[in-house]
Amino acid sequence: MSLGITYTKARRTLGVGFALLLGSTAAPALAEGPTLSEEAFDASKQLYFEQCAGCHGVLRKGATGKNLEPVVKTTKADGTVVEGGTLKLGQERLEKIIAWGTEGGMNNFSDIMTEDQIRDMATYIQMDPPKPPEMSLTQMQATRKVYVEEADYPTEPLHGRNWENFFVVIERDAGKVAVIDGDTKEVLVHIPTGYAVHVIKASEHHSISEPENPGRFWYTMGRDGKMTKIDLWQTPDKMLVSEVKVAYDARDVAVSGDGKYIIGGAYWPPHFVISDAVTMEPLKVVSTRGVNTEGDYVEEARVAAIYTTPHEPTWLVAVKELGQMWQVDYSDIDNLRIDKIDTSRFLHDGFFDPTGRYFQIAANASNQMVVVDSKERKLEAIIDTAALPHPGPGANWVDPNCGPVAGTTHLGEGTVTVWGNDPEGHPDQAWKTCYEVETDGAGLFIRTHPNSDYYWADQTKHPEPEVQQSVQVISKETGEIVKTIQVTDTPGTAAVHFEFNADGTEVWVSKWNMSDSLEPNGEIVIYDAKTLEEIGRVKGLYAPTGKFNVYNRSNHVT
Amino acid sequence: MSLGITYTKARRTLGVGFALLLGSTAAPALAEGPTLSEEAFDASKQLYFEQCAGCHGVLRKGATGKNLEPVVKTTKADGTVVEGGTLKLGQERLEKIIAWGTEGGMNNFSDIMTEDQIRDMATYIQMDPPKPPEMSLTQMQATRKVYVEEADYPTEPLHGRNWENFFVVIERDAGKVAVIDGDTKEVLVHIPTGYAVHVIKASEHHSISEPENPGRFWYTMGRDGKMTKIDLWQTPDKMLVSEVKVAYDARDVAVSGDGKYIIGGAYWPPHFVISDAVTMEPLKVVSTRGVNTEGDYVEEARVAAIYTTPHEPTWLVAVKELGQMWQVDYSDIDNLRIDKIDTSRFLHDGFFDPTGRYFQIAANASNQMVVVDSKERKLEAIIDTAALPHPGPGANWVDPNCGPVAGTTHLGEGTVTVWGNDPEGHPDQAWKTCYEVETDGAGLFIRTHPNSDYYWADQTKHPEPEVQQSVQVISKETGEIVKTIQVTDTPGTAAVHFEFNADGTEVWVSKWNMSDSLEPNGEIVIYDAKTLEEIGRVKGLYAPTGKFNVYNRSNHVT
Repeated sequence: MSLGITYTKARRTLGVGFALLLGSTAAPALAEGPTLSEEAFDASKQLYFEQCAGCHGVLRKGATGKNLEPVVKTTKADGTVVEGGTLKLGQERLEKIIAWGTEGGMNNFSDIMTEDQIRDMATYIQMDPPKPPEMSLTQMQATRKVYVEEADYPTEPLHGRNWENFFVVIERDAGKVAVIDGDTKEVLVHIPTGYAVHVIKASEHHSISEPENPGRFWYTMGRDGKMTKIDLWQTPDKMLVSEVKVAYDARDVAVSGDGKYIIGGAYWPPHFVISDAVTMEPLKVVSTRGVNTEGDYVEEARVAAIYTTPHEPTWLVAVKELGQMWQVDYSDIDNLRIDKIDTSRFLHDGFFDPTGRYFQIAANASNQMVVVDSKERKLEAIIDTAALPHPGPGANWVDPNCGPVAGTTHLGEGTVTVWGNDPEGHPDQAWKTCYEVETDGAGLFIRTHPNSDYYWADQTKHPEPEVQQSVQVISKETGEIVKTIQVTDTPGTAAVHFEFNADGTEVWVSKWNMSDSLEPNGEIVIYDAKTLEEIGRVKGLYAPTGKFNVYNRSNHVT
Repeated sequence: MSLGITYTKARRTLGVGFALLLGSTAAPALAEGPTLSEEAFDASKQLYFEQCAGCHGVLRKGATGKNLEPVVKTTKADGTVVEGGTLKLGQERLEKIIAWGTEGGMNNFSDIMTEDQIRDMATYIQMDPPKPPEMSLTQMQATRKVYVEEADYPTEPLHGRNWENFFVVIERDAGKVAVIDGDTKEVLVHIPTGYAVHVIKASEHHSISEPENPGRFWYTMGRDGKMTKIDLWQTPDKMLVSEVKVAYDARDVAVSGDGKYIIGGAYWPPHFVISDAVTMEPLKVVSTRGVNTEGDYVEEARVAAIYTTPHEPTWLVAVKELGQMWQVDYSDIDNLRIDKIDTSRFLHDGFFDPTGRYFQIAANASNQMVVVDSKERKLEAIIDTAALPHPGPGANWVDPNCGPVAGTTHLGEGTVTVWGNDPEGHPDQAWKTCYEVETDGAGLFIRTHPNSDYYWADQTKHPEPEVQQSVQVISKETGEIVKTIQVTDTPGTAAVHFEFNADGTEVWVSKWNMSDSLEPNGEIVIYDAKTLEEIGRVKGLYAPTGKFNVYNRSNHVT
């Protein structure tokens, strides 16, 4: 059974058949508007899905990016209606925006798309957005594949390696995950997964109900909605044990604290799916379509990220466009408790405080970090930050003035914002900005380790290669940048994402070969966490981005 | 601001403009298919909404009634696809079905629609269903009207009457609610409400957090989504104190146990709305679109009914097409807890057991009564019944053999099913059929009172007038029908619905003037609850159906 994002087949020029089949809802004037050949429409649709939908949405209502519907009517405060939309912008203007980007944060795509592709895309977004199909539980169940039967799972590690210091590494565009021995630095295997895996999650230690052998099983979610299960006790060639597809477009996955369930969160259809963590059999689908905190219905209300709470039998599901965190209780999935916590938009990614009670997540369009109290299942606080916070796996440490603190990098500017996060021990500092650090460029990730004196920030979003290729190391004691390290100077590569090894003595940074991402020219550069000197490289990786150390991730070391 | 169900204005013959504007999703062949003039389309759309949408849905996916989309593809077990739908049935066949009904439960509409209306309706349902618009919180807030300011609410009853024995009576087609003095039998006022009010709810006694003066404030929900607030302490001409519209199509309303909030449940948009019970200001909207217990996405997942739990700070929201009971906790609406309890389809109406812990609700397409444990917020049991159970306000009593029991009438046949409902005192009988009673005809309502030896069942769904006009009185002691009472013999009227007075000495039955429902020719016929003899009539009512005694309803007397 094929479950690619096929949409309904129809004529691709804008006639009656097209509009009827695809459920278009916009401008009547389009009947005489821009058209594309069937091939150009299909190619643009696929390219839009891969390059544009993440920010603008498949229905083009906008989120991180702007609304891209053909006709958009906005009612102003005085009651007058202003008509905008892509038809009004027109072909020439749209081509320029796509090619060159905007100061509002739109990337330039002149490097990524051909001139023909840009021309067709400008036309495509003046046409009605086709609505992709739904996906039923039965369809999902039919996609499940088992490579190693549960009865054949090993009862002890088969490779004699220190698997708790393994690193599981996303090889983004190749649709693979690499497993690296953190002790020997050997690449053990490249496991085929879904396309452009966003996050990988392991079974973790949990205070109520432990899974067996936390950190043994890892689960990936591809952008194409394919989830895979990886068993680190297997010999490398057999580590991929099963897979299932639960969406056409997806971002995140998490394991329940007891190791019984996994949950996959989707962009389209907008839903999450609870599956059996052993068999990968999908069991339950919950739609996230809903009404946002402003009181407006949002069809494309997408699951940005999902996290397992360390002390409650719950997951935190960030429903991006609703501005709501849904705390989903997995202790009885037939009587599914969900606490819908009103926060801010648009929710993106986050991390727990050191106690595991409070979850700190970016609401990037609001320039805020939102704090959820997972014990009380309610909003704890909202902290104003710099533009477009993006912490990734985040960082917690102890500041000499503010006590326990956490920090985030920002997509919008070169700033690290640091806030207090110990409401019991330091109520005066809690959820208030402690200080900010000006870095050289906007970045994606911040990271530290309890045994380290520093926290690290990348600058991957800066337009200049030299800054993009450099990371900055900041002192926990002084809040000063102590070193700027240019990780790579190879054209078309960037430095991105950090992970410490299990004992905190090494920092692993990705040299992300963006421009030839399907070639094994990417590397991980390893630094001594104390001297900040390079001590080694892992080569032969396909566009390595996120890295996950087994011990740190399964023991909540942040 | 007008919020009638206007849809988007567009050409009403099936051209490009129509399909584009209304977001149609079905058959491409329709471009050459049946068409209607703009006037005929609009008239059919309105008639469909009033007469057909309740069972078939505005999007025509079906629920109690069949799917009515132009093209319906069904995949059989062997993988072959069968194409059906209204286009396949065709004009002539559809006209006959609408006019004459079917054995499957479709009513005959030859009495209700003209020949022209039937012809146009047969055409209309072969065309794509237009999708009605959404409704935002801001739109709802703009519809609020206050007739009596809160500051002007009286501090004691202004009329010197025994308001706790008032009856609040639905005057269905007139869009009114009558208030009747149960002691004197005087009709005090006909209050204008929304169209075809389905249920009225009062503030009630609650074990955790009492409202002030339970039973004083009553809330109505019209089919048109208009909610009104009634103050029984006012002089009759001022009893309507405020109103607000929260949907285009709606069925039920409930008050929180603490009297602070009201919740309105809608058919379209599929959502519920929490409002301030004092001011009627809408505060929060929650979509009920979701994935049903089979794992399929349902856009038109409608709120069939809502009930206040007597001992928990929650409402039970029956989401009809999902087969789920949502237990919604109102103690913190910014961090809204919802327990989504998987049950059976299609959920309709129900009632609590005498302890107030267990809620018993009909899943009428499954021929089951579903029991929810409101304390544990989970499914307790499912009981098989006769065809299409419909208990209305229901009845609980004590059976000599089975102990505490409850019963339901059925839309599908003349049977009363009785089951045990005391899992603590009578675990062997609990949630099992105790016995069944064969009555003369299918009915809508069953009712009793703790002080009465009998329970009463109506037969409103029977096709023969004589049976439809008769009710049956059944002994609690023997389970035998002790008397059949013909309440009315006026052509075009039916006997429907019972309510006891506060002390249980009288039974009030509606003589529902269906055929001239906009005239005040309806009556309530009052019987002595012991002798079963008629003791009086309340005349001058407009199509009276449901009746609600203030004391009984606000004190959970069932």
